[in-house]
Amino acid sequence: MTVVDFERFVEELADVSGEAIMPFFRTAIAADDKAHGGVFDPVTEADRAAELSMRRLIERAFPGHGIIGEEFGAKNENAEYVWVLDPIDGTKSFISGFPTWGTLIGLQHHGRPCYGLMHQPFTRERFHGDGEAAYWRGPSRHGKAQEERRKLVVRPCAKLSQATLMTTSPLLIEPGLRESFHRVEAEVRLSRYGGDCYAYCALAAGHVDLVIEAGLNAYDIVALIPIIEGAGGVVTTWDGGDPSKGGAIVAASDRALHEAAVRLLGG
Amino acid sequence: MTVVDFERFVEELADVSGEAIMPFFRTAIAADDKAHGGVFDPVTEADRAAELSMRRLIERAFPGHGIIGEEFGAKNENAEYVWVLDPIDGTKSFISGFPTWGTLIGLQHHGRPCYGLMHQPFTRERFHGDGEAAYWRGPSRHGKAQEERRKLVVRPCAKLSQATLMTTSPLLIEPGLRESFHRVEAEVRLSRYGGDCYAYCALAAGHVDLVIEAGLNAYDIVALIPIIEGAGGVVTTWDGGDPSKGGAIVAASDRALHEAAVRLLGG
Repeated sequence: MTVVDFERFVEELADVSGEAIMPFFRTAIAADDKAHGGVFDPVTEADRAAELSMRRLIERAFPGHGIIGEEFGAKNENAEYVWVLDPIDGTKSFISGFPTWGTLIGLQHHGRPCYGLMHQPFTRERFHGDGEAAYWRGPSRHGKAQEERRKLVVRPCAKLSQATLMTTSPLLIEPGLRESFHRVEAEVRLSRYGGDCYAYCALAAGHVDLVIEAGLNAYDIVALIPIIEGAGGVVTTWDGGDPSKGGAIVAASDRALHEAAVRLLGG
Repeated sequence: MTVVDFERFVEELADVSGEAIMPFFRTAIAADDKAHGGVFDPVTEADRAAELSMRRLIERAFPGHGIIGEEFGAKNENAEYVWVLDPIDGTKSFISGFPTWGTLIGLQHHGRPCYGLMHQPFTRERFHGDGEAAYWRGPSRHGKAQEERRKLVVRPCAKLSQATLMTTSPLLIEPGLRESFHRVEAEVRLSRYGGDCYAYCALAAGHVDLVIEAGLNAYDIVALIPIIEGAGGVVTTWDGGDPSKGGAIVAASDRALHEAAVRLLGG
């Protein structure tokens, strides 16, 4: 046993970040515009407040650990353990008042994602992965009784023609890669846009079969990898490589489906 | 005072439909495929169970009223009062495990929408309109204390260049009209896909400025009209006409913004 109870610690990270964010949700806030390439990418006060609150806790509990955060960059990123944080993944959902954004809290050991948590503080949902994957809903795992708690398991879906595909927006896929995305999209049963991290969690929960995106940062995906893999899914780059640096990402509920998608994406 | 307490009655409609739907949310259910034109349009058991439960209550309380429902068609549709029901607006969100669908309960008087309620039973949110518009969150208005309750008011946004635009999917806009949609999309600050009824409610709540869709049925929009208008927004067909029959719909938070959009959509 370590000095710090890990499970309680990550719950506390989720609690403090949620408390920092929620006062800003659905209020009139100024959204910074760090647009590049015509894509609107808002950053909020909430984002910064949440990342600071998580960094403070991590620095106090694990002074030797590294931290990579969306808002405040990297610190000690070659440490054995590195936390990878995205306080609000889905800022466009956030500023539009939609509950389909989430706080991403990932942990890497020697560069490999070993723990991940997605927290949605408005719906009070937490998806986490650490070899297995679990879902719970309620104020806090260690607080009041959970309303709902269950294991996350992907659903079988071997064929593109049976698959539900999600991507946040085809407009976020750079034009050179968009053709390949549309090749897969033309083969699936249902294609849906929107979702950000929520789409990967819906895949882990067995409601969605395929998520294909491009241009992701490491902090957009690291926390989600243990959730997807813990639920039995597969996640790689479009060419089948290590997804933990971000880039063009394909996640699938089923190994055969993943192979079919990778084949079309590379074709 | 009427024999039936109207406010309690609509709350009960929301309660019974939510109770009928929720056991089917995020479970493995067979989704019918009533596809036409290549667009996947699933209908669920939940949809049918919820509409039946609402119809039963309406027929008992108001035997003279008409009912138009997504699942079971029209009955007495020329009555003075006609209920317009869509038990699950956003069935694709529903089957993908996303909480951005809703139950739409509208009431028309002499063909004019006079009351509307959007209920999201997973997040326990209710948006309603009847001259004014209000939001509340919690188990039931007449049940336990509401966690949150407030008036809905649109935000000012006179220019397309400052607007957040939403549409469920450009693929749902028939090809002949899609060009016009993209003309507006090219002018706005942020364009987001997804949302169904949730997008119109986000507009009423002041988080989104413009919603543009096409091919809507009356039951997709009737309940939303009093919510949008009650919050100070404007909703018409693309050519500025009566939106209550559905079709190509444009909703805006601001009258000047609405005019600018209508000009581009018709151009």
